[in-house]
Amino acid sequence: MMEVKSKGQQVSRREEILDKAARLFKQKGYVATTMREIAEQVGMEAASMYNHIRGKEELLEEICARVAETYVNQMNEIESSDLSPIHKLQALIRSHISITTKNIHWISVANNEWRHLPDSSLKSFKKARDTYEDRLAEIIRSGIDCQEVADVHVSITLYTILSSLRWIETWYKPNKSYNARDLEENIVNILMNGLKKSG
Amino acid sequence: MMEVKSKGQQVSRREEILDKAARLFKQKGYVATTMREIAEQVGMEAASMYNHIRGKEELLEEICARVAETYVNQMNEIESSDLSPIHKLQALIRSHISITTKNIHWISVANNEWRHLPDSSLKSFKKARDTYEDRLAEIIRSGIDCQEVADVHVSITLYTILSSLRWIETWYKPNKSYNARDLEENIVNILMNGLKKSG
Repeated sequence: MMEVKSKGQQVSRREEILDKAARLFKQKGYVATTMREIAEQVGMEAASMYNHIRGKEELLEEICARVAETYVNQMNEIESSDLSPIHKLQALIRSHISITTKNIHWISVANNEWRHLPDSSLKSFKKARDTYEDRLAEIIRSGIDCQEVADVHVSITLYTILSSLRWIETWYKPNKSYNARDLEENIVNILMNGLKKSG
Repeated sequence: MMEVKSKGQQVSRREEILDKAARLFKQKGYVATTMREIAEQVGMEAASMYNHIRGKEELLEEICARVAETYVNQMNEIESSDLSPIHKLQALIRSHISITTKNIHWISVANNEWRHLPDSSLKSFKKARDTYEDRLAEIIRSGIDCQEVADVHVSITLYTILSSLRWIETWYKPNKSYNARDLEENIVNILMNGLKKSG
């Protein structure tokens, strides 16, 4: 569930097109990327690619929809768990980091290129994002109510948490002086120590 | 020093042009903004505006240079103070938030439109940013060495701090359910509680 991309021995041509598109959209931006360039990366003729996909817009729609779905599934699972609010918060931050490091191009495209979605899918993407934020705010609020979380301003805290994770998609490169696990541990510790009620 | 913009009773025409340009660059993006639109906002003819400014590029260069200078001045002041590392870190985070809320359009342009700087000023802008990050990393490192700051990974922490402040320029609107002071207090508390060595 944590993987946005389909994996396994039989990755379909369509999946391969989607993944190469995500890489190019991240690197060059959605607008500047051509179907011809995507085809080159997949190693097929641009014309044959249209057997698998209607066009560039469909690629962006599917990338954004899958990313949104991954976050929502994660939220569903954690929200319905028996964890207390602060442990739900911790699990969400942890999985948010993990989803990002495992799907760095897809997440980057959903975060930065969603404005180019056509109206219909733009609407549902924004709705998914707003609902995710509302549910996260509700977990913070419950944590404050049961005195696990410090008496913080809910919206400021919500945006500070989500924003603090945004650099990962841009700057994180595995195999440097830290791995995905170090990343997760450090950020979770800083945020959770910062949020928990002291005393 | 905390104000990027010049203030006072005699704000020059040039200052007014810069400030209107910053607003338009934030709203529409640097590339999509025309000199005609800036002139309209200032209430002068596009032709007369060229008595004050050579062109759009000069506006972007000056906005980015002033923002960089403001951050560097702040760093100089705090770095040379008698504060201990953790209090330097706290003062920097606090002033970073304050600089952002007081100059929201200017900061947003410097953060998001710097890629459009011409080569010469692009180089010095990136150098200023890298040096700022190096100096901030050094303060975190000193804090760990003297056991005021928890034993965190320096780069992860550096990026997490800077990233956690990035949403302000996009989402913060005064006069909502919180003011600039609430913003500063909440974020400083979360980050500083998260970073300080316990026990």
